[in-house]
Amino acid sequence: MLDASSTLSSSGYNHPALLKLMTNPNNLSTFVNRPALGILPPENFPDKLTESLLSIAPSGMSRVQTMACGSCSNENAYKAMFIWYRNKERGQSGPSAEDISSCMVNQGPGCPDLSILSFTGAFHGRTLGCLATTHSKVIHKLDVPSFDWPIAPFPRLQYPLEEFSRENAQEEARCLEEVEDLIVKWRQKGKPVAGIVIEPIQAEGGDNHASADFFIRLRRIAAKHGCAFHVDEVQTGGGCTGKFWAHEHWGSDDPADIVSFSKKLLTGGYYHKEALQADKPYRIFNTWMGDPSKNLFLCEVLNVIRRENLLEEVARSGKALINGLYELQAQYPGLLSRARGQGTFCAIDVRDDATRDKILVKTRDKGVILGGCGDRSIRFRPALVFKEYHVHLFLNIFNDVLTQFK
Amino acid sequence: MLDASSTLSSSGYNHPALLKLMTNPNNLSTFVNRPALGILPPENFPDKLTESLLSIAPSGMSRVQTMACGSCSNENAYKAMFIWYRNKERGQSGPSAEDISSCMVNQGPGCPDLSILSFTGAFHGRTLGCLATTHSKVIHKLDVPSFDWPIAPFPRLQYPLEEFSRENAQEEARCLEEVEDLIVKWRQKGKPVAGIVIEPIQAEGGDNHASADFFIRLRRIAAKHGCAFHVDEVQTGGGCTGKFWAHEHWGSDDPADIVSFSKKLLTGGYYHKEALQADKPYRIFNTWMGDPSKNLFLCEVLNVIRRENLLEEVARSGKALINGLYELQAQYPGLLSRARGQGTFCAIDVRDDATRDKILVKTRDKGVILGGCGDRSIRFRPALVFKEYHVHLFLNIFNDVLTQFK
Repeated sequence: MLDASSTLSSSGYNHPALLKLMTNPNNLSTFVNRPALGILPPENFPDKLTESLLSIAPSGMSRVQTMACGSCSNENAYKAMFIWYRNKERGQSGPSAEDISSCMVNQGPGCPDLSILSFTGAFHGRTLGCLATTHSKVIHKLDVPSFDWPIAPFPRLQYPLEEFSRENAQEEARCLEEVEDLIVKWRQKGKPVAGIVIEPIQAEGGDNHASADFFIRLRRIAAKHGCAFHVDEVQTGGGCTGKFWAHEHWGSDDPADIVSFSKKLLTGGYYHKEALQADKPYRIFNTWMGDPSKNLFLCEVLNVIRRENLLEEVARSGKALINGLYELQAQYPGLLSRARGQGTFCAIDVRDDATRDKILVKTRDKGVILGGCGDRSIRFRPALVFKEYHVHLFLNIFNDVLTQFK
Repeated sequence: MLDASSTLSSSGYNHPALLKLMTNPNNLSTFVNRPALGILPPENFPDKLTESLLSIAPSGMSRVQTMACGSCSNENAYKAMFIWYRNKERGQSGPSAEDISSCMVNQGPGCPDLSILSFTGAFHGRTLGCLATTHSKVIHKLDVPSFDWPIAPFPRLQYPLEEFSRENAQEEARCLEEVEDLIVKWRQKGKPVAGIVIEPIQAEGGDNHASADFFIRLRRIAAKHGCAFHVDEVQTGGGCTGKFWAHEHWGSDDPADIVSFSKKLLTGGYYHKEALQADKPYRIFNTWMGDPSKNLFLCEVLNVIRRENLLEEVARSGKALINGLYELQAQYPGLLSRARGQGTFCAIDVRDDATRDKILVKTRDKGVILGGCGDRSIRFRPALVFKEYHVHLFLNIFNDVLTQFK
């Protein structure tokens, strides 16, 4: 099988470097003894963090908090933004007696009516806090109580981006204007926006891209209104866009206040600026807070990425993939459209969802695992070792399948 | 060091059986290849579940859903209750067009105003859904937006329980009455209670116990009002009370609709009755949904528990521990009170929190790790291999420390 989905954009399989790591007896205790990381971390944990997560920290961020999965990462990142926002409001004074008594019974001002601004089509996870910022599919949201938080339109761009730059810039400006309006409106409603959360490429919601300019302006709007800016790289992080973080494509040295991750990083967690550090222990806390054994794997994964220049490989494979998709959509104009991508993080739309689903099955029967996203998109999420010859192998098989749908 | 806290009531360290498991080359791939369990489970996963989690399923439950941690387990258990409740309301008809459009923007009826009833002093985790049912400490809740959900009083009993049975029964009746009142009140408010969540022993909230009769009546009240009944065994499960699940002490063959777990089980997750199975795939879902490597460890842990009769050992050690605590509180009446416990899941109160904290440090300096809980309690959470002689070792050291606080 040729895997162009890699367990929902997570990691690959059976890499010899990881198998070797497992046979080193010095590593045994890291697997067998799972600590309560927040209170009893293993002695070598700071070193391992420096070697792994901190060695790939986004620009401007020197702190990282590990978590067990993507949802917990975002939930805790939201909490960090709420705590930061309220501390900012309080200034030097600590919580009031009313804060303390009201929070124990879920009421304000202790449990304040703060909000997180998210975007239509966004996906940030399925636990109750995350889910209030997820708007990709009905199946995720139906029947679950939620928060009245603002939802701004994510730009709906035309592809290829460079061919529609004027129209796309207009669409992005419209969305940014709406963001500012919502921030003002929710402040007036008594539910101020503590943070804005966004994916650098909306993944689950259908592989929706926006320009570097859009994200940089959005980040400025957040700062202007005193909101934290959280970039969710759970699906985009780890190298699949051709850079380690998708936000690096923006070329900003101050891209965000918080960056969350999981999947390809093997452990969940989030980076944050100094200011977003909770002011007291146990405010951001749980029993496990991640798993040092995943960190051990990550060290080795990073070694392999560096040694084998995998980010360059991804850029090369990604170029071959997107060019192949452009050719196919020219060849099958009624069937395929909107080919788009960054690195191997690519997608293409099919004329309707029923046809998309049939194509996914037929391609699988010919030995290629693909994934769907959005209403009628196919998404490509291969592992970093997906080389140019894998791309050509895939394109041939895909073409064979498409001829049946002409 | 003598560890009577075992990483917040999780597992012990360096058990030879687990170290041996790690050296078996057949197990390597389970550690190296973490699958997206919900869509691409490894071939042997159903067998491993049968051998591990399903072999210890609570009475009346044949289904289990694994998750990565305790908070995710409870978040998803709540979602299962919300989905079940709304499907029950709808009967044969599917979601309405209004359900579908409103849920995407966080509004009712698609995101309904349903609630979960919890108890004062409860701890069910720190993500936003769980946190709305957690009421143990200010530090967990302050500054985080919450839901207006009902909170009933947890019985505040007098110890030893058998000496105050009349007073305790009155207190429990008062709390149950309040539960029914709240269910009616929240239904009238338009925020019906979809589920009740409770710990068999409130752990983080200060080791608060209630009688089997209380839980059985509460379960009946839930059924009478059409609410699901969720027993959170994240801290109590796994054998530390002398039975595998603390709810087994109730002697009921239909204890609950949902039982969640984590910590000592090494993986998070929840058991549930057939009816609580979501009606469609992807409604309860995330990328990893647990970790098969933790399940592999759990199989071995269960083998050891059975082979070494560890539940009997815990019952024996627990008896020695509680008797020792009774003696110490008789010896230090101004300092210690309210000794209580089930198995080795024991606690004792100290006259004030400052003294409690000092005792914890002094005991640690003499080589014993203990934990605090509630306002001024000390909690005992040793691993299952904590034998009677460990208890006596501990009691001697503890006595040495206490003499300094007379």
